[in-house]
Amino acid sequence: MAGEKFNAVTLIRKKRDKGTLTSDEIRFLIRSYTEDSLPDYQMSAFLMACYLNGLNTEEAAALTKSMLHSGIVLDLNEVPGLKVDKHSTGGVGDKLSLILAPIVAACGVPVPMISGRGLGHTGGTLDKLESIPGFTVDMTLDRYREILKKHHLVLAGQTEDIAPADKRLYALRDVTATVESIPLIAGSIMSKKLAEGIDALVLDVKFGSGAFMKNKENATELARTLVNIGEEFGKETIAYLTNMDQPLGYAVGNWLEVRESIDALQGDGPEDVMEITHLLAGTMIYLGDKADSVDEGVRLSRQAVSDGSAMEKWIDIVKEQGGDAGMIMQPESYKKADYIGNVTAQSNGYITEMDTFALGMVAVELGAGRREKDDSVDPAAGFMLHKKTGDTVKQGETIAVLHTNKKNMLDAAGTSLLEAITINDSKPAPKKLITHRIDKKGVHEYAD
Amino acid sequence: MAGEKFNAVTLIRKKRDKGTLTSDEIRFLIRSYTEDSLPDYQMSAFLMACYLNGLNTEEAAALTKSMLHSGIVLDLNEVPGLKVDKHSTGGVGDKLSLILAPIVAACGVPVPMISGRGLGHTGGTLDKLESIPGFTVDMTLDRYREILKKHHLVLAGQTEDIAPADKRLYALRDVTATVESIPLIAGSIMSKKLAEGIDALVLDVKFGSGAFMKNKENATELARTLVNIGEEFGKETIAYLTNMDQPLGYAVGNWLEVRESIDALQGDGPEDVMEITHLLAGTMIYLGDKADSVDEGVRLSRQAVSDGSAMEKWIDIVKEQGGDAGMIMQPESYKKADYIGNVTAQSNGYITEMDTFALGMVAVELGAGRREKDDSVDPAAGFMLHKKTGDTVKQGETIAVLHTNKKNMLDAAGTSLLEAITINDSKPAPKKLITHRIDKKGVHEYAD
Repeated sequence: MAGEKFNAVTLIRKKRDKGTLTSDEIRFLIRSYTEDSLPDYQMSAFLMACYLNGLNTEEAAALTKSMLHSGIVLDLNEVPGLKVDKHSTGGVGDKLSLILAPIVAACGVPVPMISGRGLGHTGGTLDKLESIPGFTVDMTLDRYREILKKHHLVLAGQTEDIAPADKRLYALRDVTATVESIPLIAGSIMSKKLAEGIDALVLDVKFGSGAFMKNKENATELARTLVNIGEEFGKETIAYLTNMDQPLGYAVGNWLEVRESIDALQGDGPEDVMEITHLLAGTMIYLGDKADSVDEGVRLSRQAVSDGSAMEKWIDIVKEQGGDAGMIMQPESYKKADYIGNVTAQSNGYITEMDTFALGMVAVELGAGRREKDDSVDPAAGFMLHKKTGDTVKQGETIAVLHTNKKNMLDAAGTSLLEAITINDSKPAPKKLITHRIDKKGVHEYAD
Repeated sequence: MAGEKFNAVTLIRKKRDKGTLTSDEIRFLIRSYTEDSLPDYQMSAFLMACYLNGLNTEEAAALTKSMLHSGIVLDLNEVPGLKVDKHSTGGVGDKLSLILAPIVAACGVPVPMISGRGLGHTGGTLDKLESIPGFTVDMTLDRYREILKKHHLVLAGQTEDIAPADKRLYALRDVTATVESIPLIAGSIMSKKLAEGIDALVLDVKFGSGAFMKNKENATELARTLVNIGEEFGKETIAYLTNMDQPLGYAVGNWLEVRESIDALQGDGPEDVMEITHLLAGTMIYLGDKADSVDEGVRLSRQAVSDGSAMEKWIDIVKEQGGDAGMIMQPESYKKADYIGNVTAQSNGYITEMDTFALGMVAVELGAGRREKDDSVDPAAGFMLHKKTGDTVKQGETIAVLHTNKKNMLDAAGTSLLEAITINDSKPAPKKLITHRIDKKGVHEYAD
């Protein structure tokens, strides 16, 4: 093996002393770790050195490549067209994938989407899909290709075969306080996305109280790193910075969000949800070469909703992947949670702020999410907001409706939800939803 | 256990984010690690965070305390007088302990000295002592106290019972590139020294090409940290910064250095060796309350050599610890190495520089030291310098005499030695041997 000539301690020391590692050196470390010849204690010292001293774009790309090639990389050459996916860094109420994937597919761009589950305050697309009775995200590679070819869309779950090195590294980072490193996060995201066999990628990088990156500077840095890695791999990558200071839309919780996305595909989506969805979808359509500009892509995206083709695509893919399409067409027939209760405002005023991390944790309390990786989720749990930031509220007016199958949970969750929402006398200044576009040319202020 | 309330990841994160850990937090980490409830991979991430973000004096003292109390702490209360020891950070040709220990003991100050073995380019006092036929450094605690009481001196080896946490931590640091951290080094040194049951400590902190700290700034910082930790424990601690840009004295190698120290005790020591020895011994005598000032201590130290009492003490202790005192009195009768060869100058000029690290490694090549912890050493191996920095040399003149029991080693070692010595036309400016004194009041330029 090529790596024999390297010495782990020397490489840890190099990063410790702010040196730059070569691709070969990074490959040696990741490969040795995956092959169990590099022990956890050396990798964790290296990760802490990376956390504190950083990795440049070439190093982050080499890390991504090593993790990518630790598992299978899907070959989608037999599927015609440029394959484009979208990745979000995670937020609360983020059901955008469920809406944009059928839109983009309806416009003729193949979308091979491999999603993850929710953890902590954020939801996961996979959990939302699985709230549809019968829907399956497990399939063979052949079936994956077949569905994609037939529908221009496939919605799958991550398997053990995809970037196993990333899985091991992530588990180690989790117990050694080395998770929140921008190049390590970027490498983790990109190794999994590149394994899908995509040609281009759109990224929704969130900042604010409900995002992993609380501040915009870190989010910008993450977006730049992700775009640079994508470009290093020859995959055109465009990122948008979007605000996550309040949940997207009104629904938070798996089936509740599926239901909101059905409304969205039928032309009745919340304004904030649709603004980002159309921009991301339009960008995907542009990158998939079905539009000459992002603007034209956005126009096609809106059209796919208004002419019903996106909804049709959605019903097709739900059927194809074993889901109960009747439930999509009659969502009101879904079995509701056992306990449903209103949360009402304690005072008059404007909603000035939402602690969106805390709101995400309320959803977890209600049963919609996971505290630990192996927890199960309740598809019916969650809440529907009736008000959003900037709205007026009157004492006693409903702010949100909670859904849970946990007995005696409504009161505690209601209290937590109220604590997360600030009501004040003066109307807050509206916040821009999409602030920047980051592409290979740099960071651009976004003007809508 | 008190530590239950802490979480390892939270503490690693705290240090990662440049926070200051409390004594309880540090105790929790060290204790959990020693008790095997904290895995290596968390400790190594923590150590890298310490390496890169540092530890303040209180943290370093807490670390020292935790490591100290991981093993036995000797109680020497039944031995009358203030017990004083000296520690050197290690160099080449550093036989000072062998000379100053009997001097200080002869002046009535009890010296409980626990020494280590050599590793890499530096020699170790234990290896030197064991080159004396019959000399033993292994003893029970009762015997240790008894010898100290009887002679004001005991020379022992480290046991498994002393600071076991330090031993485990050091082994982990060695394989995770976290050795060269000043607070971690200081904690390691002080936990072992404080376990001896001393009342005060003198430190010889070396800088230069043969020292662990190549530059003076780092050496100063280490000295300050060591002194601060000592003072935190209520043990008066005085450090000197001394130059290690060339070997101390002329002898490098275990028995060769014992022999040079016998000469020194008989009034015939090399100038550099005696300058530092008397200062360190004088400071120990002062700290042991047998002199009113360091200057008076130095005077008493010189007197103990000139009146023969130090040599007498040396013979007594060698006999007490099973050594062949005849060999001390007739060192010329020691069995010489099988191969002895001259190394001669290749040109005329002045010796302007010695790569002392390289010279230390020549001694290792000859058999006098260890590359790995478990290597054995040859007591007779090493070399005698005939010239030192600043001396003139003529082509063909002997620079050094090599001693080895390894066949066919002389040529290679001779070449390495010549490569380590620079000969040039102009006489180099002399370097100050002792540059600073560091005590609780701060760093003082040293004026001799």
